[in-house]
Amino acid sequence: MNGNEGEEEEQPGFEIGLVVRNRILKQEDDNVDCIEVLLKELTHVGFTVVKVRGFTDGFIKLSATLERLGQAAADLQLRKPTYIGIDLPFQWEDVNAFVRQPDGKLFSWCERFRCYQHMLYGIRNRRQSDIILKLDGRELVWKIQEPLLKTLEFEGMVKHVFPLHDEVKRKKLLRSWVLNKRNFTNQDIDDMYSYFGLKIAIYFAFLRMYARWTVFPALLAVTVQLVNFGSMQFLVLPVFFTSTTLWAVLFFQFWKRKNYSLISRWQINCSVTAGQGYKFLGMECTSIKTRLELLKAMGDRNREKAVYQRYEWFGHLVRFRNNALIILGIVCLQLPFELAYAHLYEVLKSDITKFALTACYIILIQYFTKLGARVSVRLIKYENNENSQFQADSLVYKVFGLYFMQSYIGVFYHALLHRNFTTLRQLLIQRLIIFQVLENVLEHSLPYIKYSIKKYRDVRNKKHRRSGSGNKKVHFHSKVEKEYLKPSYNASIGDELEDGLFDDYLQLALQFGMIMMFACAFPLAFVFAAVNSFTEVRTDALKLLTMFRRPVPRAAATIGAWINIYQFLIVMSICTNSVLLVCMYDQERKWQIEPGLAGILIMEHVLLLIKFGFSQFVPEEPAWVRARRVWNAEQVQDACAKQLLKSFPSREKNSEEKKLE
Amino acid sequence: MNGNEGEEEEQPGFEIGLVVRNRILKQEDDNVDCIEVLLKELTHVGFTVVKVRGFTDGFIKLSATLERLGQAAADLQLRKPTYIGIDLPFQWEDVNAFVRQPDGKLFSWCERFRCYQHMLYGIRNRRQSDIILKLDGRELVWKIQEPLLKTLEFEGMVKHVFPLHDEVKRKKLLRSWVLNKRNFTNQDIDDMYSYFGLKIAIYFAFLRMYARWTVFPALLAVTVQLVNFGSMQFLVLPVFFTSTTLWAVLFFQFWKRKNYSLISRWQINCSVTAGQGYKFLGMECTSIKTRLELLKAMGDRNREKAVYQRYEWFGHLVRFRNNALIILGIVCLQLPFELAYAHLYEVLKSDITKFALTACYIILIQYFTKLGARVSVRLIKYENNENSQFQADSLVYKVFGLYFMQSYIGVFYHALLHRNFTTLRQLLIQRLIIFQVLENVLEHSLPYIKYSIKKYRDVRNKKHRRSGSGNKKVHFHSKVEKEYLKPSYNASIGDELEDGLFDDYLQLALQFGMIMMFACAFPLAFVFAAVNSFTEVRTDALKLLTMFRRPVPRAAATIGAWINIYQFLIVMSICTNSVLLVCMYDQERKWQIEPGLAGILIMEHVLLLIKFGFSQFVPEEPAWVRARRVWNAEQVQDACAKQLLKSFPSREKNSEEKKLE
Repeated sequence: MNGNEGEEEEQPGFEIGLVVRNRILKQEDDNVDCIEVLLKELTHVGFTVVKVRGFTDGFIKLSATLERLGQAAADLQLRKPTYIGIDLPFQWEDVNAFVRQPDGKLFSWCERFRCYQHMLYGIRNRRQSDIILKLDGRELVWKIQEPLLKTLEFEGMVKHVFPLHDEVKRKKLLRSWVLNKRNFTNQDIDDMYSYFGLKIAIYFAFLRMYARWTVFPALLAVTVQLVNFGSMQFLVLPVFFTSTTLWAVLFFQFWKRKNYSLISRWQINCSVTAGQGYKFLGMECTSIKTRLELLKAMGDRNREKAVYQRYEWFGHLVRFRNNALIILGIVCLQLPFELAYAHLYEVLKSDITKFALTACYIILIQYFTKLGARVSVRLIKYENNENSQFQADSLVYKVFGLYFMQSYIGVFYHALLHRNFTTLRQLLIQRLIIFQVLENVLEHSLPYIKYSIKKYRDVRNKKHRRSGSGNKKVHFHSKVEKEYLKPSYNASIGDELEDGLFDDYLQLALQFGMIMMFACAFPLAFVFAAVNSFTEVRTDALKLLTMFRRPVPRAAATIGAWINIYQFLIVMSICTNSVLLVCMYDQERKWQIEPGLAGILIMEHVLLLIKFGFSQFVPEEPAWVRARRVWNAEQVQDACAKQLLKSFPSREKNSEEKKLE
Repeated sequence: MNGNEGEEEEQPGFEIGLVVRNRILKQEDDNVDCIEVLLKELTHVGFTVVKVRGFTDGFIKLSATLERLGQAAADLQLRKPTYIGIDLPFQWEDVNAFVRQPDGKLFSWCERFRCYQHMLYGIRNRRQSDIILKLDGRELVWKIQEPLLKTLEFEGMVKHVFPLHDEVKRKKLLRSWVLNKRNFTNQDIDDMYSYFGLKIAIYFAFLRMYARWTVFPALLAVTVQLVNFGSMQFLVLPVFFTSTTLWAVLFFQFWKRKNYSLISRWQINCSVTAGQGYKFLGMECTSIKTRLELLKAMGDRNREKAVYQRYEWFGHLVRFRNNALIILGIVCLQLPFELAYAHLYEVLKSDITKFALTACYIILIQYFTKLGARVSVRLIKYENNENSQFQADSLVYKVFGLYFMQSYIGVFYHALLHRNFTTLRQLLIQRLIIFQVLENVLEHSLPYIKYSIKKYRDVRNKKHRRSGSGNKKVHFHSKVEKEYLKPSYNASIGDELEDGLFDDYLQLALQFGMIMMFACAFPLAFVFAAVNSFTEVRTDALKLLTMFRRPVPRAAATIGAWINIYQFLIVMSICTNSVLLVCMYDQERKWQIEPGLAGILIMEHVLLLIKFGFSQFVPEEPAWVRARRVWNAEQVQDACAKQLLKSFPSREKNSEEKKLE
């Protein structure tokens, strides 16, 4: 019956860093000095504040007590799972009714970060008049009810707010995930979850499972390559193709199961919308609710239904138009370009011109991809996607379309049009090994190089200034400053919607497509994939733990759009491998495919695609039904929150229950 | 604030009939006379009892007040949707918190029937000793705590318990659904729902939507048949095939949406299990709960997970084995038989031998189907299907396999092996028109014939007896006796799991398969399908309203396994139509398909099938995760039931809320 148990928990350390401009002169009046006011307000809100003077910037490290975080969570009405199995808005008085994280903490890292943000941006000017703040002679106005941090960020006084690494946990994770030599793939995913949040933990769980599973096709590929089956040799490739397809189908079905059990372990209650497999986390189904609230004023339910249906169909239309535009763009602009490159590459004889051509191509394609991504992001803004997760997924589909063309069309060209298997294999080896190794090296060295350059520039600036003023000692970089100098974990494109995981998933998906779609032409690719994904687990963990600032945690309970992309790649791989087999077994081109037959076959495949793909475009559950369902669920949760919590006052009772279960 | 409003509602009429043996002599002691005791106990429980003397049997008509039904519902802990959007166990005191049916009633027909059953079978011997009951000299023992009705049924004193037609509503439905001439397909589905319950209403909604939608392909088929497109004629069939496929895909996606909105309108809160699209109604997810309760004793959660996983995988294995057995049976036994028949039919010249062959075939295939169904039912008993709905679905899949072979393999034989399009069209016309018309006639006349025979036999028996005893007047058949003489709405096979809807769905699915799979060979079939389904709406309504006893209501929120069967038929139709097109355009057999090419194509299609079908076999969500989710949901509902209901004491408040919405 001790309501204080929550406080016995180890308090969180310094988890948030602010970067402020180093002022040259302190104002005499503390009530006017910008930085002093900020520090005072932060302390007032409940932060423990530590000031660190850096080379060019000042740093403020922040931490808050658990109780203060809890109050922020209650202010936010943060929904958390309780021991009674329902998500309820958090309340500090009933702290024991809420389920603890697997690491024993009350809040997950995602939740803590949200609370910190709420506290930081909740500092408003509560006086009756504007306040004048000064810094180094400049004046700025803190308007009534304006958040202080927004004002300071706008004026450039506060340069950045970023989450800080926790040295103890970081080192622990480094030991268990990167430097762990015995335990090859059995690292504790819960640690990842509690340090990096849901989305990154799901990525690592996926990557690890993928690495383990690729061992089977890799072994099979080695067998296929080494063993001579004598008279059965002609059966080897079809059997290999069939087993890799089965392997992929099994893998993704079991991944979905794994995903469900992870979510269940981390106590995330999510209602699955039918057909699509997306999860609404408590924090993400807000948009549908607010829309419904707008609709409430409109009167009766029939009206509501009509409004929703119009809204829904308009949304489908816009999405359809956008996708059509992107596909048109890819087919009309990118496809000829890629084919031209592939053709020139085939035609040219000299290696030097080939090299020049490739260099040209790479520069142009980079530009093209960037452009496509920017167009996609702009198009998505007009879509009425229900929440940021849907928006991000929409971007993923569109951008993947670009990359799909870019990565595979050249390979298709060599494989299918020219039946040139030597070039095909060369190309595959080149793409897989050279490109991916290069990419990996770049991916891991670029952040370090950036970091070094920044550090060097800082030091030089400082020296330069010292030679000017000549009265200050050079500070060594403090830890927080070093972290700030590290690059943040951003996506290469569309970084307002996605973080760096986008690139990691993209790389994995492209590699998967490469090995699956040309499995028959080059089985050994699986060996490469296995090796690559085993190293990827470690290098990605290393990258996140040492190269980058700690990423802002995101809550996404699944791998989202990528699962559909993988499914698409599997279907594509069935078709391409069939065609490859035809090409390989029909060396003399005796198997005639009449245009009529080919036409019918193509039509059949398109129809099959529509049959299976259509349910992705029009959901089974009408929007108004879902809206009502969500609204109902919210209603009941709101209605019974207080009462329910009172009936579960102590944690002892819960633990008794647990024993009974 | 009137808590009595519920009682102002029109009380239900006589909805349940009991058939008891006509006794010859009444016992002197009413406490011993079997029938008198039954009547007394029924009155005691709260039924309004009316005795009707019939020809050979006695009848008891029962009705109960709404309050008494409500008490039974509370005893049953019947979950009902409330105005706060959650399903809660019914309580009579808080009657106003529960959502009314669309027709203004408190309980749906399904719920009322459950309550009646609970009341009837809840009559137990509450005394300290067994009671001796007598009837016509025979004695029977009513043991302590034994339900009276079970005892009487076992001894043959009570022959049957069945729901009674409500004459007023029946006539209203007849007017609106069968005799309605102006409003062709716009009958009120809510009436159906409130009279026949959920499952039959869903069937009619599906049938009506199907009828409306078939108008499009029927019109297209007429156009294709009548208009000559000149030089574009060769494109007509591919275009027709593509549009019918698109039509079918769209239809089923929109049907799912329609289904959702119906369920939403009828206030059925159902959580959709991921991927499969099945709904757990409150009354049906009991099994998973009870299993979990058994597991509770086992201790910690990890153990629970392991137990569930073993249980789940064992279930998959058994189901896999059963399906393999059935498929093996179909391929090894039925296929050769069907092919032999088709071959003989092709070979034989004389019409008489053909006729004899067909007669033989029909008798044998009937026997084979019955056998297969019996084997399926026995196999299903060993499967650990979660509830009766899953069991029924499992049966549907297996039995449909049998019918699929039976209906289509002969057609395939003529179409693909012999490329004999004349026989194919003949066969299609024969199957579609003659068979279906015959089947419709039989379907509607057989019940009437059965009914007439029974009636005639009764009268003859009575006359016979009168000539023996010679002292009684012949009673005319009373209404309730006439209803009892009507056949009940049973499935032709597996009637312990399914009701008569099985046959109706089967007929519809087989017809759908026939028109879709051979669309290119015989487009006019769609016209037939449209006409047939429009008449089917009326004849099926007529059948249910006049030919049969009122069916026992069943709660199934979707068309269940049939949707998957339709999806399968669409995929099959894409493949068969492609092959048909090849056969039609390649009259001179110049398009050579090499065995190698054919093999690769077959492999490709099988893999595609596995890719898309696999998720049906292994669900995404592990059983233990689902169990925990269901358990959690139940928990919270139990926990907050009382408290929540108190906070919604009046209906006025709810209507205010509604206004606000």
